[in-house]
Amino acid sequence: MRNRRIGFAHERELAVKLWRKGFAVIRAPASGSKTKRIVYPDIVAIKNGYVLAIEVKTTHGEKPIYIPAHQVQKLKEFIKRSGGEGFIAVKIIGSGEWRFLKIDNLVKTRRNNYKVDKELLTKSYRLSDLIAIVAGNKRLDDYLD
Amino acid sequence: MRNRRIGFAHERELAVKLWRKGFAVIRAPASGSKTKRIVYPDIVAIKNGYVLAIEVKTTHGEKPIYIPAHQVQKLKEFIKRSGGEGFIAVKIIGSGEWRFLKIDNLVKTRRNNYKVDKELLTKSYRLSDLIAIVAGNKRLDDYLD
Repeated sequence: MRNRRIGFAHERELAVKLWRKGFAVIRAPASGSKTKRIVYPDIVAIKNGYVLAIEVKTTHGEKPIYIPAHQVQKLKEFIKRSGGEGFIAVKIIGSGEWRFLKIDNLVKTRRNNYKVDKELLTKSYRLSDLIAIVAGNKRLDDYLD
Repeated sequence: MRNRRIGFAHERELAVKLWRKGFAVIRAPASGSKTKRIVYPDIVAIKNGYVLAIEVKTTHGEKPIYIPAHQVQKLKEFIKRSGGEGFIAVKIIGSGEWRFLKIDNLVKTRRNNYKVDKELLTKSYRLSDLIAIVAGNKRLDDYLD
C-alpha cells in the first residue's frame, strides 16, 4: 500500500514534467477504480498527435528491473489502437534522473517477462531526447545501437 | 458524493463503448487524486493518432445543460497541446443514447459559461458519426452548418 502510494508520487512527478514541456498528459485512475475491460498505461502524454504510452518504474541503479509481460502487452495494445510509441520510464533514485526505454528495445527473459539492466539503462533516452523525438528533430533509431 | 459516483458509472460506460470500437481510452483519476497543476478531460480516446478529449454530462432531455467555462477551457488547453478535437459527451437518460457536441459549437451564455439546449442536442453527433469522422470517412463540418 505504501509502495503503491510512492509509485503514484513518481507518476505524478513525471506527469508534471511532461506537462511543463508542453504535452497534454493524463494519468490512469488508481488500480481499484480501473475498468477491468480496458487496459491503461500509467501515463499517456500527447503532443501534436504524437502519442506516448508510458509505464513508470523506479530503480536504485544496480539491480535490473523486471517488467511483467502483461504490462508490456498492455502498452502494445494501447499503441496498436492509438498509434504512437510505448515506453518504460525509469526514475533513478539518487540522481533523480528519468530515463526512457522504447518497449521494442527491452530484453525478454526466459520466463517471457522483460528486463531492463544497467547496460540498457545507459543506452536509454533522456527526457530531452524524448522531447526532440516528438518535436520531429530526431528519429527514434538515431539513438540506439 | 452519490452524484459523483453515478457520474463515474456513465464515464465508465462511455469508456468501454469507445474501447469496443477500437479506441485507446484513458479515464482521468478521481478528482481527489488529480494533480492540481495539470488539467485532465474526463476521457481521452485515441485512434490512429486522432485524439478526442471528452467531458461527460447527462440529461433527462428537456432542460438545457450548463457547462462551466473552466471545463471548456480545460478541454481547449488539452487539445491545444495534444492536437485533436474537444467534445462534450451527453448521455440522454431514458433513451440511453449518447450524443457528442464539438466544443466550438457550444452556445455561450451571458455569464460566459456554455449551454447545450434541446435544439443543439438534436443537431449533435451520434457515436457512429464520431467513429466515421475519426476513420476519415467524413469531415466534422459535414454535419453541422
